[in-house]
Amino acid sequence: MIIDCHGHYTTSPRALQDYRDSQIAGLKDPSYKPARAKLNVSDDQIRESVEGAQLKLQRDRGTDLTIFSPRAAGMSHHIGDATISEYWSEACNDMVHRVVALYPENFIGVCQLPQSPGVDPRNCIKELERCVNQLGFVGCNLNPDPSGGYWTDPPLTDRWWYPLYEKMCELDVPGMVHVSASCNPCFHFTGAHYINGDTTAFMQFLTSDLFKDFPTLKFIIPHGGGAVPFHWGRYRGLAQDMKKPLLKDHLLKNVFFDTCVYHQPGIDLMTKVIPVENILFASEMVGAVRGVDPETGFNYDDTKRYVDASALSAADRRKVFEDNAYAVYPRLKAQIAKQRGKGNR
Amino acid sequence: MIIDCHGHYTTSPRALQDYRDSQIAGLKDPSYKPARAKLNVSDDQIRESVEGAQLKLQRDRGTDLTIFSPRAAGMSHHIGDATISEYWSEACNDMVHRVVALYPENFIGVCQLPQSPGVDPRNCIKELERCVNQLGFVGCNLNPDPSGGYWTDPPLTDRWWYPLYEKMCELDVPGMVHVSASCNPCFHFTGAHYINGDTTAFMQFLTSDLFKDFPTLKFIIPHGGGAVPFHWGRYRGLAQDMKKPLLKDHLLKNVFFDTCVYHQPGIDLMTKVIPVENILFASEMVGAVRGVDPETGFNYDDTKRYVDASALSAADRRKVFEDNAYAVYPRLKAQIAKQRGKGNR
Repeated sequence: MIIDCHGHYTTSPRALQDYRDSQIAGLKDPSYKPARAKLNVSDDQIRESVEGAQLKLQRDRGTDLTIFSPRAAGMSHHIGDATISEYWSEACNDMVHRVVALYPENFIGVCQLPQSPGVDPRNCIKELERCVNQLGFVGCNLNPDPSGGYWTDPPLTDRWWYPLYEKMCELDVPGMVHVSASCNPCFHFTGAHYINGDTTAFMQFLTSDLFKDFPTLKFIIPHGGGAVPFHWGRYRGLAQDMKKPLLKDHLLKNVFFDTCVYHQPGIDLMTKVIPVENILFASEMVGAVRGVDPETGFNYDDTKRYVDASALSAADRRKVFEDNAYAVYPRLKAQIAKQRGKGNR
Repeated sequence: MIIDCHGHYTTSPRALQDYRDSQIAGLKDPSYKPARAKLNVSDDQIRESVEGAQLKLQRDRGTDLTIFSPRAAGMSHHIGDATISEYWSEACNDMVHRVVALYPENFIGVCQLPQSPGVDPRNCIKELERCVNQLGFVGCNLNPDPSGGYWTDPPLTDRWWYPLYEKMCELDVPGMVHVSASCNPCFHFTGAHYINGDTTAFMQFLTSDLFKDFPTLKFIIPHGGGAVPFHWGRYRGLAQDMKKPLLKDHLLKNVFFDTCVYHQPGIDLMTKVIPVENILFASEMVGAVRGVDPETGFNYDDTKRYVDASALSAADRRKVFEDNAYAVYPRLKAQIAKQRGKGNR
């Protein structure tokens, strides 16, 4: 089985965005009372939204299962307050759950958290519990910068985040460190803010002893880990200058990278320098880059081709495509069995 | 000749930091009147500061000339106001000039600019002119985030920066895009803020048409261009999705990358995906990473070894080591001749 650990519901039905637009309009209206979404979306609309997109790409590219979460830029935790974020997160997570319910063999859910700048991360626990315990989700996306490009919340290694980490450990779910839209004009979202968020989180982990406090906590850093594999020598050297243990002992039991790197030389570098146990297959589709690479004739984000063409052995490719996902998402295997037991469309 | 385009005076005499400390202490003292530095530093102190460091490393590693600028983290444009920054920049640039004057065959100057958050970049023109016209410097370091990690100034492509760019074009000097220390606890300086600054600047250039307005303006993005070469497919794809020209036409006549990437696979990737004309040799020494890589037995920042061991032909290596520097720093060749005509120690 080929598991893509990083897919977003970027094609959700219009009604979801309409609800968000009503929230945003409400922020300018003093009489606005935030209310939970009651979306009128039919199963056929859900099917239409993925049949020609994520499902088609799974079939075309020969992948089997996508670990699926709400649109990352859509999270925009900087918009409104914690209540706005709570209602919006519930609506987005419910919509992902609708997809999973219709296509239990093809998708497994990961949730957006109702973060809000400056708001205690304890606030996210209720929604995380709901998504894991009631909806069968196997992880969460954690935004290291709810401010959307101004980085005003504490680093991920601060005790500020510990109550959430305790709950993640208790529920046995990992977090994908994923920023959202940027409201800072310095940062293009998919071209700068995402990649910077990845690099920043890794360096926060490197300078800390977070995983001494949480030995079972696991994070996936998406987009190939930002700049990290390219600068692997720099990071090894910085850790060494700081008298930290070797990176493999210091954080590679807890930190993993996905393969959302959109050219062969990038994947070749990554598979050369990062231990294979720390690499999870992913494509981020339908996502950041939608075109066809004229140098290859295939979509930039058809990352399976790069992994297939890399120097990895068949056994190692299997780790990247499947086995590592079971190790990083401890609830995944049972959830797959449960969803497949239910039968498919 | 082997030219290292990215070296910092990280080992400057104590008197320089004492002056800075007096500025910083003064910020808390209502009676403090900022004053220009009058440093009592002997030629012998200058010699001592580089003989066992930058000069020794040049000799040990077989490089000839370092394009040399003040310590990057030391710039800290977020400290104090424009006057503080002006006096501090003058002191730092003068100290670099002292090194150049003592070792005219080994160093050529690049200046720090007296930037300050929210202050019009026109404010930097006087010091840029002084450094180029009076001190013989051949470029400047431009901080895309004078706030030190909060990114509150406009992107580098905003007209805010245009008066400075006009002067850079008039003087025929390039800018190295280089952030400074981070006062944002989210960002480790050399492990996150520097690399993010590089990635961010590249994406700002990509989304803009800056080089239509300034066809001769040139920027070096240090640290191998941050995450850019590793994600070269992503950047090609993003430009394509935005209907921009191919990157080689869109910005590679104006944007260059240095080789401050501290392991062989990183340099191998870079030399594979980035046109050789856009790569300039650099080591950033004595800088971010000071240790010896146990995997190679050599210093992480001994980047000449990686370039030597890369797949580049001898002719291409010569471009990286020397010829590209003449193209990117138009005043360099004449300045070398001038400084060598003067004789050496």
